[in-house]
Amino acid sequence: MRTRPLKVALLGCGVVGSEVARIMTTHADDLAARIGAPIELAGVAVRRPDKVRGGIDPALITTDATALVKRGDIDVVVEVIGGIEPARTLITTAFEHGASVVSANKALLAQDGATLYAAAEQHGQDLYYEAAVAGAIPLIRPLRESLAGDKINRVMGIVNGTTNFILDKMDSTGAGYQEALDEATALGYAEADPTADVEGFDAAAKAAILAGIAFHTRVRLDDVYREGMTEVTAADFASARQMGCTIKLLAICERAADGGSVTARVHPAMIPLSHPLASVREAYNAVFVEAEAAGRLMFYGPGAGGSPTASAVLGDIVAVCRNRLNEATGPGESAYTQLPVSPMGDVVTRYHISLDVADKPGVLAQVATVFAEHGVSIDTVRQQGKDGEASLVVVTHRAADAALSGTVEALRKLDTVRGVASIMRVEGE
Amino acid sequence: MRTRPLKVALLGCGVVGSEVARIMTTHADDLAARIGAPIELAGVAVRRPDKVRGGIDPALITTDATALVKRGDIDVVVEVIGGIEPARTLITTAFEHGASVVSANKALLAQDGATLYAAAEQHGQDLYYEAAVAGAIPLIRPLRESLAGDKINRVMGIVNGTTNFILDKMDSTGAGYQEALDEATALGYAEADPTADVEGFDAAAKAAILAGIAFHTRVRLDDVYREGMTEVTAADFASARQMGCTIKLLAICERAADGGSVTARVHPAMIPLSHPLASVREAYNAVFVEAEAAGRLMFYGPGAGGSPTASAVLGDIVAVCRNRLNEATGPGESAYTQLPVSPMGDVVTRYHISLDVADKPGVLAQVATVFAEHGVSIDTVRQQGKDGEASLVVVTHRAADAALSGTVEALRKLDTVRGVASIMRVEGE
Ligand SMILES: NC(=O)c1ccc[n+]([C@@H]2O[C@H](COP(=O)([O-])OP(=O)(O)OC[C@H]3O[C@@H](n4cnc5c(N)ncnc54)[C@H](OP(=O)(O)O)[C@@H]3O)[C@@H](O)[C@H]2O)c1
Ligand SMILES: NC(=O)c1ccc[n+]([C@@H]2O[C@H](COP(=O)([O-])OP(=O)(O)OC[C@H]3O[C@@H](n4cnc5c(N)ncnc54)[C@H](OP(=O)(O)O)[C@@H]3O)[C@@H](O)[C@H]2O)c1
Repeated sequence: MRTRPLKVALLGCGVVGSEVARIMTTHADDLAARIGAPIELAGVAVRRPDKVRGGIDPALITTDATALVKRGDIDVVVEVIGGIEPARTLITTAFEHGASVVSANKALLAQDGATLYAAAEQHGQDLYYEAAVAGAIPLIRPLRESLAGDKINRVMGIVNGTTNFILDKMDSTGAGYQEALDEATALGYAEADPTADVEGFDAAAKAAILAGIAFHTRVRLDDVYREGMTEVTAADFASARQMGCTIKLLAICERAADGGSVTARVHPAMIPLSHPLASVREAYNAVFVEAEAAGRLMFYGPGAGGSPTASAVLGDIVAVCRNRLNEATGPGESAYTQLPVSPMGDVVTRYHISLDVADKPGVLAQVATVFAEHGVSIDTVRQQGKDGEASLVVVTHRAADAALSGTVEALRKLDTVRGVASIMRVEGE
Repeated sequence: MRTRPLKVALLGCGVVGSEVARIMTTHADDLAARIGAPIELAGVAVRRPDKVRGGIDPALITTDATALVKRGDIDVVVEVIGGIEPARTLITTAFEHGASVVSANKALLAQDGATLYAAAEQHGQDLYYEAAVAGAIPLIRPLRESLAGDKINRVMGIVNGTTNFILDKMDSTGAGYQEALDEATALGYAEADPTADVEGFDAAAKAAILAGIAFHTRVRLDDVYREGMTEVTAADFASARQMGCTIKLLAICERAADGGSVTARVHPAMIPLSHPLASVREAYNAVFVEAEAAGRLMFYGPGAGGSPTASAVLGDIVAVCRNRLNEATGPGESAYTQLPVSPMGDVVTRYHISLDVADKPGVLAQVATVFAEHGVSIDTVRQQGKDGEASLVVVTHRAADAALSGTVEALRKLDTVRGVASIMRVEGE
């Protein structure tokens, strides 16, 4: 075993970074044995230098992250600051100064992964980011490496723990959105400003990363269709139950049937209770992968939290260090298919639509005609009377999202349709 | 991209091998783009040269596997023959002649992995075997690489599809073992001689491989405690139901509480219906991993079959080829902890015991005394009268297997105990 240690610089020492530092210290011997050389924490960049950070030598703390990545003797820079800048510049500077990078930064990777990959390649360095998607769950490596000989057609997952916790609460207790969110906040599952989670931005960043890797093409955050889950109601859950379904916020990446394009989207959807994703509880994450030869795979585990995320970061540190000892690099960006990303209108799926309608004869015929005119075929219709009003629940066969949007627009114009109470996609069948 | 192809020799062209050859041909362009060089099928060794093998150039077929691995121009030897010999000699000969090896051979790896690893290391070659455990499910790579910075404490899984199919049938239809086995055989899920599956040999080989990787120590097939599932009855399933459990054949690898040793075992066990492994249906496999930092992870998918297994083999071929282009090798054997494997008697778990007893006062007191004398603490007891006879169902708290065996031996000697109808471990709580 080599005795000269590999040097690790930690950028950020918050929820994730502090756990990375702790594990590096407490498990130093194991890490050295697995890498084939000891690793040493060479510096820790933070914003607030005076904060007490247990277990970390104060002499290692600096507020000058740029100077740290420019030192020239650093082997691996671990970026766990988050956000676009200064993270991006720090990462590219690290590559320029001969370091490889391990990052957990989904926002940056989804927005500008190509720039990072290009810089890594130019300087012959590694860029690893297992922790950026689904926390501790090994997912990036299985997709990039284990399935490298297969053709992935679909990745569908629960990749945001906060929203899954909220939806699970709504499902199991009958609570409304606000009540469930309040509980999630009180228990520390939701941040004070939950926008990034509940509006689907976090999941969309992960969808972009997953789609890019799965289909070997570039998918950016802007390419991902995104709908949050703040409009999901207790009534939606009741409707879902009647169909033998529950509701999850899903990130779905698909190859088009003709193989010529891909789509990536995040939205709430009904899925059958029998689907493995339906039983993912609390803040757990799970990702379902469909590949041509492998069939249907699922990966499940804690999608966030300091220590699970640190586990993924440490796995990457070990891999990058092994590569350095081998004087090699791991797989770089793979975007050779250059498949275009189609808009949401091209996505083909099923829909569950609740309409409030006038309680008079002929309404169903009118509604059915609108569906037919837009080429959306109906699977089932359920009519219900409630308090003198009537409601119609329509479940469609598979249809393009654009056709469904056209249908809904036309339905809204019917005198007999008082309102469109909810539209939800149905997945996983 | 390099234009000179990397050469792949296929040893065996049966269920798995023929699919590997097919994917190599149909997906040649994708594989080349992902590897950075084309790969070429350079030879296919089989037993019966005259068998028609669709899609494979007859000129590539040979019965002389030894000559093929000795050619000297082969980059990757794919061993999908199975069994101990000639597979072992062919693999070590391949290393000697400058080839890396991808194998799906769980029997060989469990029995003599150390010899293969040593030969690979001596000759600077790679040994990959993702397909040997749980077919298409990425498991070896996540354990060896993604979790390389974590401490795995437990691996518990359903790693044999045949037995899971049989147990699932028994559970869902109330069928007995033989009836369910017959159905599995008729549907092609069980082989004509199902011994390796139903007696747990196949699962034990996988447990040995998983334990070795998870705990960074050497675990051989002989170190694995093994009990098959041929004695599981419809009555056992009824008892399991009463406890809110089902029955699965589990492979369980554990680090002892004091960290100083490990255990590996295969046996049927009751697990709560709420446990993720309980809902693994038909011939699917799933493996649950508990790691210190990552928490609880699960990997799920098809555990066998030509095309899923070929997916795993192809992923390894891509990895090995990338390593070769990098003039590097992937992770070798990691057995530095040298943790000893403890015998089954040291395993601590819970037990569900059904006793047929005399229907007279004082029996429960007698039975309870025997448990107490052996230090096995009782969680619940249920007394049932049936046809004038009585039965006692005892569920224990956690106890060492040796203590439980002693208890059962003593119970059998009691006049009032007519028989021990079943003993089953209870896991996953
Ligand atoms: N938390 C999770 O569960 C989780 C899961 C998966 C991925 N991630 C990703 O991991 C990354 C870090 O997340 P986190 O939860 O650990 O964040 P966090 O707790 O807010 O920690 C951020 C750290 O970065 C430091 N920092 C901020 N700006 C800096 C600057 N300009 N220069 C130097 N240091 C600076 C902060 O310093 P101070 O300590 O002085 O404030 C803090 O130590 C993010 O990309 C996030 O998306 C997090
Ligand atoms: N099948 C699965 O689902 C699965 C899943 C995971 C792992 N595996 C593992 O994969 C390996 C292969 O399994 P399989 O199901 O593909 O087996 P198989 O269908 O029985 O195929 C074995 C192949 O090896 C050839 N062969 C046998 N002895 C040979 C020899 N001495 N020299 C050259 N070729 C020889 C056979 O030739 P002929 O064609 O001429 O008979 C046949 O092509 C085994 O280690 C198995 O444990 C299989």
